[in-house]
Amino acid sequence: MKIAVVGLGLIGASVSKGLLDNGHEVYGVDIDQDAINYCEKNKLISKGFSDMGEVLEKCKIVLFSVYPKTMISLTEKYIDKFKKGTIVTDVSGVKKEVVAKMQRLLPTDVEFVGVHPMAGREKIGAEYSDPNIFKGANYIITPTEENSPSALKLLEDIGIELGFKKISYLTPERHDEMIAFTSQLTHAIAVALVNSDKDPDTYNFTGDSYRELTRIAMINGDLWSELFLENRENLIDRIEEFQERLDIIKEALKNNDRKTLITEFEKSTKKRLTLEK
Amino acid sequence: MKIAVVGLGLIGASVSKGLLDNGHEVYGVDIDQDAINYCEKNKLISKGFSDMGEVLEKCKIVLFSVYPKTMISLTEKYIDKFKKGTIVTDVSGVKKEVVAKMQRLLPTDVEFVGVHPMAGREKIGAEYSDPNIFKGANYIITPTEENSPSALKLLEDIGIELGFKKISYLTPERHDEMIAFTSQLTHAIAVALVNSDKDPDTYNFTGDSYRELTRIAMINGDLWSELFLENRENLIDRIEEFQERLDIIKEALKNNDRKTLITEFEKSTKKRLTLEK
Repeated sequence: MKIAVVGLGLIGASVSKGLLDNGHEVYGVDIDQDAINYCEKNKLISKGFSDMGEVLEKCKIVLFSVYPKTMISLTEKYIDKFKKGTIVTDVSGVKKEVVAKMQRLLPTDVEFVGVHPMAGREKIGAEYSDPNIFKGANYIITPTEENSPSALKLLEDIGIELGFKKISYLTPERHDEMIAFTSQLTHAIAVALVNSDKDPDTYNFTGDSYRELTRIAMINGDLWSELFLENRENLIDRIEEFQERLDIIKEALKNNDRKTLITEFEKSTKKRLTLEK
Repeated sequence: MKIAVVGLGLIGASVSKGLLDNGHEVYGVDIDQDAINYCEKNKLISKGFSDMGEVLEKCKIVLFSVYPKTMISLTEKYIDKFKKGTIVTDVSGVKKEVVAKMQRLLPTDVEFVGVHPMAGREKIGAEYSDPNIFKGANYIITPTEENSPSALKLLEDIGIELGFKKISYLTPERHDEMIAFTSQLTHAIAVALVNSDKDPDTYNFTGDSYRELTRIAMINGDLWSELFLENRENLIDRIEEFQERLDIIKEALKNNDRKTLITEFEKSTKKRLTLEK
């Protein structure tokens, strides 16, 4: 199948190579000629283009791997070039606003399906791309009433081809609630933890736990500030629920209350163990 | 050298095997006969004892690998059996109170040196022991004015033999300040994060970041509640500093303040990158 991948960053280039390995023809689009050259030279795409308009009439699927706001402005710019019957999809980490906007924007004979491949690295750029990051990861499709079974099936097949372990369906609203906890809150915590450190010697005395907990404090500020703000209401709620729980530990320390500490530790141990299975 | 290791749990058995591999004679002590049998059968110790009194007169070094309070009560119980010139050490994750108490308790011709090997696993028991957990990890010696250069050198040599990458000296007070941040705060955060989750479906939608961040939420409640309370003042301060920093992110979300989010993300990225080197 002919697929356009718009945005040849870490995820875009990884998806492109994964699709290419599965026999698809992949047209990569980027405004950065270096990214195109890199992807062509390393055979991550079939062919590169700097103008999105050129590929829209060639492809059955258009996959955006750019910031949500960029996807929307590109769609507005090229709105007349989308071919009837095209399936448009994305990789955004937030869905409610984005899916609604894209479905409103596109003509009725062009279908948008939101997809969130839950994989990534703390690097940016095609040089760090690797289709193996998808192996074993979660892939969430966020359908709405406007989607057709055939388009959903097509995106599901792509998820399977890319090697995702688990393919789930969630409404865009439910997706954003979930992601506020499992992804955005964890990033907020890691950032706050690193930034709260006032001691210049800390890094001489870290163990594995600190390193693991703060790996995601290395974060693309432009992208994540957009994702955070797109999902701000859910994220504020999750931060507050987390703060309440941390306050329980703090109060127990203030009151020398060992029983409460043990209760909290036993609860988290039991709950987290279910994830090991 | 003849070394007594008191407490054949995960750390005690790992240390024992590491010392045995370096040619020492290791006498393992535990009240649990099954632990002794396991360690003897798997050649993790030279010989096992259920009564600590029996080994005190044989050994140059006595290494406690039990909870801080248990070390103190065992020392009180066997106080008359410690041989002149013995070096006593431990593996506790908190130092200020523990080192002061042990140095006060022991006779002047028996020397206590605090050591914190910064390694561990989310499992308990000799069955999960592995001397490789020390390879590449941090090893902190916490001397006081009462320690002799020769005893410190002895403990340093043991750290080297066990394969620790970095051996540091910190006062017990400074150690506890540091560990409140790099170890205890991270555990408090992981526990609070897991316990704040109210959604039964969460575990179907986790990525690597959530799994890494919450690994240490599987925690030995008896041990860690003791460690937390022994270091409560430092830990309360670190929790509050972390909360202030998380509030900055929360307020930025409430105010739709992208600039502050980007500033926080750039700061954490830059700071955390120094740990990658």
